[in-house]
Amino acid sequence: MKMSYPEKFQGIAVTDNNNWLNPKKISFEPKKFLPNDIDIKIAACGVCGSDTHTAASRWGACPKNQIVGHEIIGHIVKLGPNCDKSWKIGQRVGVGAQSGSCLNCDRCETQNEPYCPHTILTYTSKYDDGYISQGGYASHARVHEHFVIPIPDELPTNFAAPLLCGGVTVFSPLLRHGCGPGKKVGIIGIGGIGHMGIMIAKAMGAEVYAFSRGENKRSDAMKLGADHYFATGTEGWDKDLFNTLDLVVICASSLTDINLDQYINIMKIGGMIQSISIPNFTEKLVLSPFSLVGVNIGNSHIGSPHEIKLLLDLMATNGIKPWIETIQINETGVNEAWTRMEKGDVKYRFVLTDFDSEFK
Amino acid sequence: MKMSYPEKFQGIAVTDNNNWLNPKKISFEPKKFLPNDIDIKIAACGVCGSDTHTAASRWGACPKNQIVGHEIIGHIVKLGPNCDKSWKIGQRVGVGAQSGSCLNCDRCETQNEPYCPHTILTYTSKYDDGYISQGGYASHARVHEHFVIPIPDELPTNFAAPLLCGGVTVFSPLLRHGCGPGKKVGIIGIGGIGHMGIMIAKAMGAEVYAFSRGENKRSDAMKLGADHYFATGTEGWDKDLFNTLDLVVICASSLTDINLDQYINIMKIGGMIQSISIPNFTEKLVLSPFSLVGVNIGNSHIGSPHEIKLLLDLMATNGIKPWIETIQINETGVNEAWTRMEKGDVKYRFVLTDFDSEFK
Repeated sequence: MKMSYPEKFQGIAVTDNNNWLNPKKISFEPKKFLPNDIDIKIAACGVCGSDTHTAASRWGACPKNQIVGHEIIGHIVKLGPNCDKSWKIGQRVGVGAQSGSCLNCDRCETQNEPYCPHTILTYTSKYDDGYISQGGYASHARVHEHFVIPIPDELPTNFAAPLLCGGVTVFSPLLRHGCGPGKKVGIIGIGGIGHMGIMIAKAMGAEVYAFSRGENKRSDAMKLGADHYFATGTEGWDKDLFNTLDLVVICASSLTDINLDQYINIMKIGGMIQSISIPNFTEKLVLSPFSLVGVNIGNSHIGSPHEIKLLLDLMATNGIKPWIETIQINETGVNEAWTRMEKGDVKYRFVLTDFDSEFK
Repeated sequence: MKMSYPEKFQGIAVTDNNNWLNPKKISFEPKKFLPNDIDIKIAACGVCGSDTHTAASRWGACPKNQIVGHEIIGHIVKLGPNCDKSWKIGQRVGVGAQSGSCLNCDRCETQNEPYCPHTILTYTSKYDDGYISQGGYASHARVHEHFVIPIPDELPTNFAAPLLCGGVTVFSPLLRHGCGPGKKVGIIGIGGIGHMGIMIAKAMGAEVYAFSRGENKRSDAMKLGADHYFATGTEGWDKDLFNTLDLVVICASSLTDINLDQYINIMKIGGMIQSISIPNFTEKLVLSPFSLVGVNIGNSHIGSPHEIKLLLDLMATNGIKPWIETIQINETGVNEAWTRMEKGDVKYRFVLTDFDSEFK
């Protein structure tokens, strides 16, 4: 199977930072094609919280005509001459939040590519030649093969997309900090990432404790596989939880909204609290050193290509899928997704679809 | 060997909180003798930073006629009827910063006694009957056998004393977070505890990085066994250290004096920063969540009885000793030790000695 594609790509871009909720369709020059690059014709793209944070300039001014999106699924349409011979034109593949790194530092060589100082994010990062990376709300993506992930046949395209960033972002700290049989693992915040955290932690064999402010997520959390649910807006929710949890992953959108001292109290000695939230640059984490005694805390980043592959296998093997809502990609569809994201009105992840009808 | 002892014990106590630097000799009622208690005639006691913090009311008002000291070495003079038959009258033993806990919770049963909610510290803690525990600047100590530690013959009394609190406090996080061959381990702050941290980490097989503000500790640090030394008051000290360390233990007296963001930068991904400092209650730890990405941090407590035993064996086996200065215990001696401690004028740990001539 060989697909054709144009010299210019098309995408839905933030053309006016003052009107970021109404992105416009543009055509754009792709980055220079290098010998290890793969071109992908995009079929679906998940909508991540990072997309709206970036579009709204919350992590710095959004670059001119920026296209976001980093939960990309599509098919290979072009392979660079140096690409591994195992790749096939037409093969279904994915790209997550990272599209480049130096590939020869200690961190890259230990499967810690997300922590490489020369990371290229899938959008808003500057390549050596000055080109600013463009994301997946687009007809095509051009990415170094190291960051292109084969998608197992068992995973439908729309359900695979949210795993590429959101899924692996919660999977990585679960994996690195020992989630598995015999462990009691908490997921704080049940949204786009947290809902995947519950099903992933359960699939890894842990006893899963779900935490959300109100009662409204209880039913969903139990359906997702949680063994226990706690509404943390209720006085005394933690009274029977002292010294219980081995690992907690905070999936809430802000670390500083969380009463960390309260969570520290429910951890076992040697327990680990991991946050995956990337709050505003100006946000500070304020802790009482006294209360942190015996418990550890850290902030995790996105997952590595290796971790994405492990997660896709885990999901395929266990036959589990994120809960998604699909929306047709176009200016109106992106506006709708972002507007509802801003209100937290999604169960639990949007996936933009039907790229063929928008980008002809 | 059987030694006699009086109904009342004697000690050097803070009798006037407004004049805490000049403690006075008193006699006092010991706590009620329980069936698992051991009475120890004290021979030496190390002087810990906690002693001056407590005496100066920095962790709350110092109780009336409080005797501090929790690096106690002495000989058994009385055994409760339920004590293990392996104890011998006259046996040389030690007591650290903890003298009691519930002994049947999950934490106690997993050798995490220091984290038991019913911990009795060796001084200032209230027993069930209201008695406030009294420390080791005294003729005798009365302690539950679980917290009495046999001292290996190879360790001289005065050199063993500082290991009971200061030594095990840095040993515990080193042990729990994998200090050993192949690991690059940092010790920040070279004082009473940090100087032992260097020799202990080295004895455990790690490559040791010592950090202090100025150049004045360089020579001592290298003699203590450090492989590298960095004066962190010098601009650019960290320029070649990016991504280097597996584990760091902060032995400085205050966590908030440390530029944590700078230390996070020199950690490997997955690296662990442990602090052992117990600052003022009001002190807060302020971190940028962005900078903590990939690195973990925690605050460790004192060590467990099991860890004290492991440390004593490590020191005995390797023939290493803390660097100490001895001072005769009496009102003048304690005043001198505390006054010099307040100025940081000690290399590196005071041990109060010659208890027999003060307490007849």
